[in-house]
Amino acid sequence: MSREYTELSPAGFTFCGGEVVEIHLTFLGTGGSVPSLSRSLPSVALKRGREILLFDCGEGTQYQLVRTGLSPLKINAVFITHLHGDHFLGLAGIVQTMSLLDRSEPLEVYVPKGEGERIKTFLRIPRYTPAFTIEVKELEPGEEVRREGYRILTSRAEHGVKCISFGFLEDPRPGRLDPSKAVELGVKPGPDFSALKSGRPVELPNGRVVKPGEVVGPPRPGRKIVYAVDTRPCEDVVRLSKGADLLIHDSSLADELVERAKESGHSTPSEAAMVAKRAGVKLLVLTHISSRYRDASILLEQARKIFPNTMLAEDLMRLEVPLRGSETG
Amino acid sequence: MSREYTELSPAGFTFCGGEVVEIHLTFLGTGGSVPSLSRSLPSVALKRGREILLFDCGEGTQYQLVRTGLSPLKINAVFITHLHGDHFLGLAGIVQTMSLLDRSEPLEVYVPKGEGERIKTFLRIPRYTPAFTIEVKELEPGEEVRREGYRILTSRAEHGVKCISFGFLEDPRPGRLDPSKAVELGVKPGPDFSALKSGRPVELPNGRVVKPGEVVGPPRPGRKIVYAVDTRPCEDVVRLSKGADLLIHDSSLADELVERAKESGHSTPSEAAMVAKRAGVKLLVLTHISSRYRDASILLEQARKIFPNTMLAEDLMRLEVPLRGSETG
Repeated sequence: MSREYTELSPAGFTFCGGEVVEIHLTFLGTGGSVPSLSRSLPSVALKRGREILLFDCGEGTQYQLVRTGLSPLKINAVFITHLHGDHFLGLAGIVQTMSLLDRSEPLEVYVPKGEGERIKTFLRIPRYTPAFTIEVKELEPGEEVRREGYRILTSRAEHGVKCISFGFLEDPRPGRLDPSKAVELGVKPGPDFSALKSGRPVELPNGRVVKPGEVVGPPRPGRKIVYAVDTRPCEDVVRLSKGADLLIHDSSLADELVERAKESGHSTPSEAAMVAKRAGVKLLVLTHISSRYRDASILLEQARKIFPNTMLAEDLMRLEVPLRGSETG
Repeated sequence: MSREYTELSPAGFTFCGGEVVEIHLTFLGTGGSVPSLSRSLPSVALKRGREILLFDCGEGTQYQLVRTGLSPLKINAVFITHLHGDHFLGLAGIVQTMSLLDRSEPLEVYVPKGEGERIKTFLRIPRYTPAFTIEVKELEPGEEVRREGYRILTSRAEHGVKCISFGFLEDPRPGRLDPSKAVELGVKPGPDFSALKSGRPVELPNGRVVKPGEVVGPPRPGRKIVYAVDTRPCEDVVRLSKGADLLIHDSSLADELVERAKESGHSTPSEAAMVAKRAGVKLLVLTHISSRYRDASILLEQARKIFPNTMLAEDLMRLEVPLRGSETG
């Protein structure tokens, strides 16, 4: 009754290749607070190269990993938006499984400020001792996490309890080297090209020094992906999402249930679409879909009226996020 | 990728009907400590009339309930064998879902002696307050729980941590009334028949008193089902299982991995079969199957050499447990 693992490539969103790190997003759980036959509880895996980051880890996340073939051992960090059960209760099970699979590398777990002790207590409940270290770290909205090759940005989310939205922001890539211009100046292809691309000047045999700026274009921005789940539409999330390639946004309830969305701290499709529009993102993905929608196409229709480049998340859907600026080389 | 909800009726094990309470067992999770594509983490639902009892509640149990159509609101009590993660981590999620579905009836949760505070702490971790009471109760091995129409028996299990095996034992049913004999003695069908069946004497118009023993056979024993999961084969479980209709027993690893089974506190098929044979049960069901067995038929073969009336549990398999003594009316 579960979906097959699918790969989707919406127009303009296929991976463009090159000497770069691939980024795949896998939607492990796209349901609301209660699971349904087709939608598991929230979790998204971001795979960048060999590393996996999890955003939320609802109950059943480890089952979905089995279905996708993503190894729990490759998960380096888990980012928990908040401590309602549907967003984190899968964590202790994954930790036990990692332990049974003989993991030795530490695991980082990020939670909103003030929730660290609670999550540590949670992970200590089962009667076994993981063979690896779990580093629980608290994040104040606005704080950043610097990791190799990217940063995790955070903002406040509006959900009634302490809740964070996360932004994955890749470091800029060096600009593109113009090979004909470089050769014209006397640079030979090979190590000198690499040096220039890396921002180092090159001295030619005739004594002339070629500076990177002469042959290399401006740095190309990294990819930006925002995970804003369990939130009302809000300014903080608009700011966090500015210019994102992909905004994954709460869209629990259709427009006509906006009052209920307000009460429960969720968003409607139109509200999510307005956030996407104001932030100028490339693609909006609606998720955290209430179990009342067996067919959730109405949510997609409502959002597309405001922001046409919108998709509806489905369990086990996979997106490959293309490089920025790759269209220019 | 999940199985369809199936109903199995092995020979001699179909429900026989009558003025009685039906008992259905649904195997929600039949896997070992790590879930696989086809086996969820341990849980068995016992439905007796309108009431559901859960034995263990591994992560994903609420997903399996959705697949079977069993309502979480009908669960009156949950019996947890021990606090390894795969046996209880689904409980907090089910409690949150029950709460979102507006449950108001209390829920009883039974855990081994000494584990009550731990499970209470676990249930308090998520940031919401259930709208119903959760009564956590500790059980010492050997203790009984009396409930309307049945008792839950317990025994020590051998698993390295505090661990309990559970026996469900239905109260005996009244014996069968012999209508021709009753009529011969002058009793008229109707309320007097019911009185005699309920154990009350009946005075006839002629002054003669007919005692139940004259027309009603001996009480017929209730059904007995034993859940012995995560245990080495042991005397306590043999005693608990004496004469059971159904023994659900740990059979994590094939016979050739007996040393590994000993280290991890599990059983092999032959060991489970020996317990079944010595206890004289009617049917043995092997469960807690390690994820290493994509095809677990080898486990079934090994057990059947010792105890032919053995089945292999499968996720979403359902068994109807027939009445005792129903073959005599």
